[in-house]
Amino acid sequence: MTRSLSIGLLGLGNVGSALVRLLEERGAEIERLHGVRLSVVRAAVRDVGRSRGLGLAAGVVVADARAVVRDPAVQVVVELVGGVDPSGTLVADALELGKPVVTANKLLLAERGEALFALAAQKGVALRFEGAVCGGMPIVRLLREALASDSVVSLHGILNGTTNYILTRMTEEAGSAGRRAEAEGRSIRSTEGLALAPALKEAQAKGYAEADPSLDLGGGDAAQKLCLLARLAFGARVRPADILTEGIERLTPADLAAARELNSVVKLLAVARLTRGRLDLRVHPAMIPRQSPLAAVSGPFNAVEIQSDSLGSTLLSGQGAGGTCTATAVVADLIDVGRPGGGALDFVPGRDIPAVPRAEIESSYYLRFTVDDAPGVLAAITASLGRRGISIAALHQRDRQQEGKDPVAVVILTHRAQEGGVQQAVAEIDAFPTTRGRTQLIRFEG
Amino acid sequence: MTRSLSIGLLGLGNVGSALVRLLEERGAEIERLHGVRLSVVRAAVRDVGRSRGLGLAAGVVVADARAVVRDPAVQVVVELVGGVDPSGTLVADALELGKPVVTANKLLLAERGEALFALAAQKGVALRFEGAVCGGMPIVRLLREALASDSVVSLHGILNGTTNYILTRMTEEAGSAGRRAEAEGRSIRSTEGLALAPALKEAQAKGYAEADPSLDLGGGDAAQKLCLLARLAFGARVRPADILTEGIERLTPADLAAARELNSVVKLLAVARLTRGRLDLRVHPAMIPRQSPLAAVSGPFNAVEIQSDSLGSTLLSGQGAGGTCTATAVVADLIDVGRPGGGALDFVPGRDIPAVPRAEIESSYYLRFTVDDAPGVLAAITASLGRRGISIAALHQRDRQQEGKDPVAVVILTHRAQEGGVQQAVAEIDAFPTTRGRTQLIRFEG
Repeated sequence: MTRSLSIGLLGLGNVGSALVRLLEERGAEIERLHGVRLSVVRAAVRDVGRSRGLGLAAGVVVADARAVVRDPAVQVVVELVGGVDPSGTLVADALELGKPVVTANKLLLAERGEALFALAAQKGVALRFEGAVCGGMPIVRLLREALASDSVVSLHGILNGTTNYILTRMTEEAGSAGRRAEAEGRSIRSTEGLALAPALKEAQAKGYAEADPSLDLGGGDAAQKLCLLARLAFGARVRPADILTEGIERLTPADLAAARELNSVVKLLAVARLTRGRLDLRVHPAMIPRQSPLAAVSGPFNAVEIQSDSLGSTLLSGQGAGGTCTATAVVADLIDVGRPGGGALDFVPGRDIPAVPRAEIESSYYLRFTVDDAPGVLAAITASLGRRGISIAALHQRDRQQEGKDPVAVVILTHRAQEGGVQQAVAEIDAFPTTRGRTQLIRFEG
Repeated sequence: MTRSLSIGLLGLGNVGSALVRLLEERGAEIERLHGVRLSVVRAAVRDVGRSRGLGLAAGVVVADARAVVRDPAVQVVVELVGGVDPSGTLVADALELGKPVVTANKLLLAERGEALFALAAQKGVALRFEGAVCGGMPIVRLLREALASDSVVSLHGILNGTTNYILTRMTEEAGSAGRRAEAEGRSIRSTEGLALAPALKEAQAKGYAEADPSLDLGGGDAAQKLCLLARLAFGARVRPADILTEGIERLTPADLAAARELNSVVKLLAVARLTRGRLDLRVHPAMIPRQSPLAAVSGPFNAVEIQSDSLGSTLLSGQGAGGTCTATAVVADLIDVGRPGGGALDFVPGRDIPAVPRAEIESSYYLRFTVDDAPGVLAAITASLGRRGISIAALHQRDRQQEGKDPVAVVILTHRAQEGGVQQAVAEIDAFPTTRGRTQLIRFEG
């Protein structure tokens, strides 16, 4: 009963190498359990000369990716090159030739997925991508298959392991500093806790962050993943540029300490919610209640919480993508491609769902103003908010030392308000001569 | 491109009715998204006369289940009758006829799954059962597909929503009572908190527990589910009788209060763990650390935490099975059956993996002895443990009132020990003339 599937592998980096090793280690067991023999018959890399110690037979590794795609011996193409070009062309070529493709390339799918999925359906072959979104947990399968009979209402995710590790560490240190301050009967100082830069260094030392972490820190990586999830959950045609994206770069220990006092934690949250036929899509730091399931997702882990009509709440969590996790997801896809039916799926063109205009997003807000400690400053801030109908739930002034010398932090929590008014007020306040730094804004969610 | 799949439905109870309603409500959307038209063309029920207000066409509902299976118009059989007989025969008949089957019958699969899966494979048709194990979360798909390329090491689950609701309520009340006692500067009394009987009544009033809750409370329901999970995770051929199964019937508010003091919560935990080629399978109340992800799974929710070689830890949680959840899982399976390839899977015969002998299970233990408050009693208890090499991590005496009058509770926490020795010691101590009630034993896990 054993079928065999000959793989043409594009890219032998972190994930590609892990894939080759995984097949070496578990290939026999996969064949026994799933009746399919998976073997890499061609692998394309930029630098053929570099030995990789992967035990691939002589002649398997070549430089010409297009030749791998076209090689008649190759039955399925695994694309692990990344980027949009030439990956997009290579994937399209494979599909044109009637070869199924497994990819872990979220950017490619976020940018060109629509055309590629249509082509795959037209050719009747599979285009699988579990490894493209949080390789450590099977969120693609969950949305595509398990929720096939259900209707998703909203989705909240922690989609980036690097930032979740950094925020977990900053939260831990804010907790220690807060407990220390409580024990000493004083308020926490803005100098206590862990700042972003050393937390990032820690993450880099542990291999959780890349040398250039900007795509992670800025929320771009999470936004790419959210595109794919929104496509699966709502059939929505979305590109990263459509998503309100804010990163964690401006978070300070003071924000984490404030979250702790509000019985919340700060997460880089990806939100997709369908409300009255409009789609609310965003990636930004958010304060979420400490008791919520996502608050417990710590370190380099990812998680998605889905609300759907029939099932209510479903939560999936797992390791953020590392080479081995992503390779495991790729192999799971290959096993599906090797099943009778070949893993091909129907294609329904994506819909353009109108977005909730940014100004109409509703939330409650944490606002931290950095202002002169002078008479009238507070009155001007509260008046600016009040003119836009934003009502204040709480107000604290922090770091007051010697009157009139250093700037002070004024923290305001608002009741539920519309983003437009809040942004206007913040812009107005930031232009006050008494404002000494850009205002920090963090939304509450859940 | 639309395919159509004509369903013969066996059973129109809670799940069957929910299935018919789900197809009415979402059938068109499922057809649009997945290219398959699902329609119930025959439904077998015991009492045809009873109107169900389900809008099934005249003549669809009949009394003869075998006729439904054999009806040439029926392309797929959905078995929602429950029990082993006649369901087993009906499922086998359908498979013999080359018709795929979707079932939510965990008992049938736990008892006769091996033969039925072999038959399905021989006939090349699908036998799907996502609804049989925790319908509210796609754990079958997760284990079968997402982890197809990985190797599972262990699995910890909260598999029964009824008991989890009860334990959540008892934990909440133990928390309130504990905080009250702390505020008043005294220890908690054994009469405080919520006992099992009223917690069960609450669960019944909310529809979370059946009139006869013995299969839930006794752990039997969780053990049936664990059989199926162990089959998926380890390929192990297991029947419910092979699983060490203890229920929550003997838990008291004092145990929940003790858990709180130990920074733990009590859960009815299902454990499957492969250690050195042997399988440790059990369902019993366990104390787990308050910070562990499973501790946060509250109310009628289910969850499974899986440790695997490549992915590390994966957690899935969702609502415990209700009619709608299970029907949603059944429809997801039907959509798979309707895909090209028909959802048929390879079959690998289950393995008989030797069990870890009960006496060799290792854990640390919470032991609550009910004894006379007399000189020498404590010494005899600790000596009995000591003779078996069980070392004591902590010891508390509770409820001491007037010396010598009422029995007192002695709570002992052990270091890691083997089950055999602990059970021997407990049996010996329970036979002491100074022992006034059966000793309570709760294992620590995680």
